[in-house]
Amino acid sequence: MKRLIDIAEAAGVSEATVSRVLNGRAGVNEDTRRSVIDVARRMGRDVGPAAAGGGPLVGVLVPDLDNQVFTAWAERIEAELFERGASTLVALRARTVEREREILQRFLHCGVEAIIVVSGHHAQERAPMDHYREVTAAGVPLVLINGVQEDLDAAYLSTDDEHAVRAVLTHLQDLGHQRVGLAVGDEHTWPVREKVRVFEAVTRDWSPRPQPIAFTDFSYAGGYEAARDLVQRGATAIVCGSDVMAAGALEGVRSEGLRVPQDISVVGYDDVFWAALTDPPLTTVRQAVGSIARAAVRTALGGGEDSRRPARTEVVVRPQLIVRGSTAAGPDGAASMER
Amino acid sequence: MKRLIDIAEAAGVSEATVSRVLNGRAGVNEDTRRSVIDVARRMGRDVGPAAAGGGPLVGVLVPDLDNQVFTAWAERIEAELFERGASTLVALRARTVEREREILQRFLHCGVEAIIVVSGHHAQERAPMDHYREVTAAGVPLVLINGVQEDLDAAYLSTDDEHAVRAVLTHLQDLGHQRVGLAVGDEHTWPVREKVRVFEAVTRDWSPRPQPIAFTDFSYAGGYEAARDLVQRGATAIVCGSDVMAAGALEGVRSEGLRVPQDISVVGYDDVFWAALTDPPLTTVRQAVGSIARAAVRTALGGGEDSRRPARTEVVVRPQLIVRGSTAAGPDGAASMER
Repeated sequence: MKRLIDIAEAAGVSEATVSRVLNGRAGVNEDTRRSVIDVARRMGRDVGPAAAGGGPLVGVLVPDLDNQVFTAWAERIEAELFERGASTLVALRARTVEREREILQRFLHCGVEAIIVVSGHHAQERAPMDHYREVTAAGVPLVLINGVQEDLDAAYLSTDDEHAVRAVLTHLQDLGHQRVGLAVGDEHTWPVREKVRVFEAVTRDWSPRPQPIAFTDFSYAGGYEAARDLVQRGATAIVCGSDVMAAGALEGVRSEGLRVPQDISVVGYDDVFWAALTDPPLTTVRQAVGSIARAAVRTALGGGEDSRRPARTEVVVRPQLIVRGSTAAGPDGAASMER
Repeated sequence: MKRLIDIAEAAGVSEATVSRVLNGRAGVNEDTRRSVIDVARRMGRDVGPAAAGGGPLVGVLVPDLDNQVFTAWAERIEAELFERGASTLVALRARTVEREREILQRFLHCGVEAIIVVSGHHAQERAPMDHYREVTAAGVPLVLINGVQEDLDAAYLSTDDEHAVRAVLTHLQDLGHQRVGLAVGDEHTWPVREKVRVFEAVTRDWSPRPQPIAFTDFSYAGGYEAARDLVQRGATAIVCGSDVMAAGALEGVRSEGLRVPQDISVVGYDDVFWAALTDPPLTTVRQAVGSIARAAVRTALGGGEDSRRPARTEVVVRPQLIVRGSTAAGPDGAASMER
């Protein structure tokens, strides 16, 4: 097998550049990359998949593909990596920390250049962080989406849940709703804690108070049960932690003999593909999946060897309230006069 | 580093079993696996992620995560692999054969035990097959879903599209529809060719004939345009190649000033999560994703070393017609009297 230095001399580049190309790493321009591969092949060097156009490899971990917002994250991140000439391996279902660790180790074993984790255990309160430190210790950049840990050097990119909850509550208040229920999943996760914290802060001065909260799970059945519970507790509007929950809530409200939006307003979260197709179409919060995915990929691939040391950065991106047919004037609100 | 034979003796198993465990391969029971890992660790052997509980690794390639049926495939296959103690790496967007080859090579490089491809280039007419042969030549079982190639030794699992199209057309005929339009994507793919072939065979004796077909793409916009086109060509029912297309068709029909299902019936394909949530809910075809995924995983992981040689098998699974609100009696049909 030809030595790197021979290929480097023949191609007129440094040995380090040849090494980067043959290992499929970033930071080499496309013309140089092609020229190195041509020379290497002419000299009889076996050029593996990493070098042969596949570009750098990035591991992406999402919780599941059942909730379409996680699918959207995987899809957008993969699309951004593809645009930049990188390949993506997606893993899912890291329900336990031990399994998350196995997946991260798999990624390292496959030779990934960076790892992006969406709503992983970093979103959990008091989760162990050692398996993340193994990644950063290996010099592999770690990008963590929707969840922040104080004592771990990684890049954090999150949706501004505070802004989202405030926008939803202002919208419902403008419509005259005075009793709003919040339906969310596991209260030990970062997005739920954030939503509950802001919900309680904003509604502190509302009357009556406290406003009702239902802790359930982020599923259709969870939304269905939460909606029935919150309606029975007097809510005239239900704010759900996901669109899947909101779809269940639409049915839950109907099962109580009530109409959406005439009797009860329902708000989703995520703006998945079908959110505009439900009956009525869902008012929801559109996470800035595209711009966060772009930033995550930029951070993951970095600009070259020097910038690739793990360092703590934190970015928060504002989501957008999308008003559709599932919200309307509350039963007693002055706003009902305007509609 | 301790030799396999030493670990085998200390653990009281064969050297082959130690090798299987340390390489994370299937065919070793859980107690034996744990005991071998314990012994190996005590003897100072580095136990990698493959062995340390992650189990065997399987690569799964799907076209994209935009179409929720591909997401469902990835999700179900991963769930089945998880149930059997295996780990999954998902890759997507192999738009060109060259890129598909890169991904398969990546999988081999990562040490996968088997590869499952959903609607890959094997679904294309006249696609090159050499990159698949590289996989089977490496002794790695290859399972190909929804698409069949005559001259490649792999395991093929497909949805029975013929049964699906016949069931849909019988349903529409029973409702009195005499002019049915078919809306499908790229005509060079196997599922489209199958659907068109059966559609033409079944409607050969219908009057008027031929029944209209719109070739577009498997997207919301594709369905929207196809529906407008087919309605203008006199169709009173539109059969779509996917639920996403059908969602677009609902809107396309409305844009022509017509109602679903009173004026025009619309049928989807896939039965994705939100197919029951549209207005009206979609009549559609439910692919047997669960049972095909289960069979694919069983084939991929095999029963042990002997059964793992690539050999040609072919299984076809029947899908199910799910009748909801988007289909109703045709304008002239006798069936309209019954409703």
